[in-house]
Amino acid sequence: MNGTLFYNARIYTPLMGRKPAAGAEQGKIAKYENGALYAEDGIIKAVGREEDVRAFLAGLDAADVEEHDCGGACMIPGFVDPHTHICFAARREQEFVMRLEGKSYLEILGAGGGILSSVNAVKAATEDELLDATRENVLSALNFGTTTMEVKSGYGLNTEEELKMLRVIGRLADETPLDIVPTFMGAHAVPPEYKSDPDGYVELVVNEMLPAVKEQGIARACDVFCETGVFTVEQSRRILNAARELGLALRIHADEVDDTGGAALAAELGTLSAEHLLAASPDNLANMASAGVIANVLPATAYSLRKPYADARRMIGLSVPVALASDCNPGSCFCESMPFVFGLAVMNMGMSVNEALTGCTLNAAWSVGLAERVGSLEPGKQADFLLLDGESPAVLAYHAGVSPVMEVYKKGVYVA
Amino acid sequence: MNGTLFYNARIYTPLMGRKPAAGAEQGKIAKYENGALYAEDGIIKAVGREEDVRAFLAGLDAADVEEHDCGGACMIPGFVDPHTHICFAARREQEFVMRLEGKSYLEILGAGGGILSSVNAVKAATEDELLDATRENVLSALNFGTTTMEVKSGYGLNTEEELKMLRVIGRLADETPLDIVPTFMGAHAVPPEYKSDPDGYVELVVNEMLPAVKEQGIARACDVFCETGVFTVEQSRRILNAARELGLALRIHADEVDDTGGAALAAELGTLSAEHLLAASPDNLANMASAGVIANVLPATAYSLRKPYADARRMIGLSVPVALASDCNPGSCFCESMPFVFGLAVMNMGMSVNEALTGCTLNAAWSVGLAERVGSLEPGKQADFLLLDGESPAVLAYHAGVSPVMEVYKKGVYVA
Repeated sequence: MNGTLFYNARIYTPLMGRKPAAGAEQGKIAKYENGALYAEDGIIKAVGREEDVRAFLAGLDAADVEEHDCGGACMIPGFVDPHTHICFAARREQEFVMRLEGKSYLEILGAGGGILSSVNAVKAATEDELLDATRENVLSALNFGTTTMEVKSGYGLNTEEELKMLRVIGRLADETPLDIVPTFMGAHAVPPEYKSDPDGYVELVVNEMLPAVKEQGIARACDVFCETGVFTVEQSRRILNAARELGLALRIHADEVDDTGGAALAAELGTLSAEHLLAASPDNLANMASAGVIANVLPATAYSLRKPYADARRMIGLSVPVALASDCNPGSCFCESMPFVFGLAVMNMGMSVNEALTGCTLNAAWSVGLAERVGSLEPGKQADFLLLDGESPAVLAYHAGVSPVMEVYKKGVYVA
Repeated sequence: MNGTLFYNARIYTPLMGRKPAAGAEQGKIAKYENGALYAEDGIIKAVGREEDVRAFLAGLDAADVEEHDCGGACMIPGFVDPHTHICFAARREQEFVMRLEGKSYLEILGAGGGILSSVNAVKAATEDELLDATRENVLSALNFGTTTMEVKSGYGLNTEEELKMLRVIGRLADETPLDIVPTFMGAHAVPPEYKSDPDGYVELVVNEMLPAVKEQGIARACDVFCETGVFTVEQSRRILNAARELGLALRIHADEVDDTGGAALAAELGTLSAEHLLAASPDNLANMASAGVIANVLPATAYSLRKPYADARRMIGLSVPVALASDCNPGSCFCESMPFVFGLAVMNMGMSVNEALTGCTLNAAWSVGLAERVGSLEPGKQADFLLLDGESPAVLAYHAGVSPVMEVYKKGVYVA
């Protein structure tokens, strides 16, 4: 037995239900003012009021229990970041400058920017170089409290490079303390060689990439960029249905720019999550709620693109479960900080502190298919938690622009 | 001789003029792509293209020169934060939560919140306790790249406590690497004991506090909170005129909530700076420009209060020199991060990267009266600079919510 008692903490956590927290449930948070958490071999055995946890311990052979005084710090579950493109080989700072200067997307493309520059950078990098570049940002995210992270491929756009990205994502899972959830996103853009034949690229994704991904077992989900000028609803449906047949979970980038029916497709297919949703109609959001689709909302992207934020209040009002994600990527949103995302959700999207906490933890865990293991502090789950320099999770918004994450624990072990 | 050469840097700096940079001048930044900086005893002796700096060095007895490879990092002047209330004894996280929940200012006051809670906390703290609490946040600011900081009193509201705060601010100047600029702000609020006689408090400020501050020589400037329900234009004029007679520089919190004529008073008196200015009229801003008053703009406060941002574009259009500040305080804006302030200025206020850089460095140095010593990288100034993890100062906005400040140097010495 390898037990540790973390005591003298103000513990705040959502509690597991049978499905993602929606509507008023999203704002419900359990609180133990004089709290403690007892973990063995990385798994929570007891959590609650310190006196209750000590009573539980008294019934055990507690000879080997280490005790850790949390000094009155606020303890919350480790962040789960359910939407990232953090596997990339090169930043795009100059493209960001061009965008600030009001340059059009075409001008940026002409200067070698845009998603294809990331595709070229991945292609030019060895697998080890891509791993090194990605690890740096993943470990930075860990420092900001992210203990579980979804990572998408999608800067490969051919079978070989997509598989290379997924191998790198798999190695990150092995080499870092984080739980990493790999998503195949070959349908992130139409590559130049298929410009005049986008359906041909869809067939490549369906007939070559997806089977290869399935055979190697290196992705848990499939995502598609359904948007004007990228993939149509019909193309997206084709790809997602093929992925479903192979047993992959489904995600969809939906209605970020235009209401092209992506949210409607998410509801039709009952995808695990739909992403962005800035332009999704109330009707389609209501359909998502009925179908149990989680909205992965990405406030740092709205911030970085100077766009309006997704209407999280409406989503919560319609009982769509809302998860919060960084969308970390080199183009539209270079941000791996969940405390920053949390702050934006509260200050700029009108989410309550409790709603944002559920969005960054338990709903995000549902969104990556790991709610049985992570996302809340409850017996049987992994002891993934953060100690914050503050009285409550509100400090994540109160201390503006500053991360209050003091210590990060993964499976009961101090990792950052 | 104690010389160090910092080479292999991408150097970006505003250049000193005869007055603060206004209008198009605010956006002018010198750039040395293969840059170097040579400092002796903390003072810059040469800065520019590496070949030019090395040629300068060749003319010296360079036996004692240490060389420091900056690894291609971006180098900018250390941030100057020209407006803080960072000297406080206790946070106000629960008051922040009440504000998020829509509680009124009166309800917050009733629950023991508001500025008077900070006054009570300062009163309850010993000088050493106040020093310890403040030092922690000041050193955090240093980590975020602030090498020069203005700090106001104003949570004392009687002579004894105001002097205590100014002594603590003075000790911070001695005990930390930062240049600290103390401002007396006895007129931060009317204390309860003068509620029915605010003019009596003004007389106390003028006749007792200001002379004591002057006698002890522990403040360089005097600030007044001119606002509906706080101090009127007439009261502010009385205090500022008295401060001027004692040789103090003048600042004024003006038109944050209402256009009460604070900006007009700033222009009339030719104060060094005017603060906030969310509600200042275009006419008064134009008058400020004519009078050479610097606008200290505080975007993190607008963010934290969910208010509209000050109209920096209009200010720059009217040739008002704009400086950026954190406003760090426990109530309306708990933020000591100038990278966060920089990001908000660019993303949410429409300032260009160059304008924001001038605002956080040279114009801020003018605003605290230290432009001869800090705020730009030029021979004769202090070698206060930052190394950023990026290609250019744009990384301060591009890396959203994440500080790219890797290394902080004060007077040529690595300090954070």
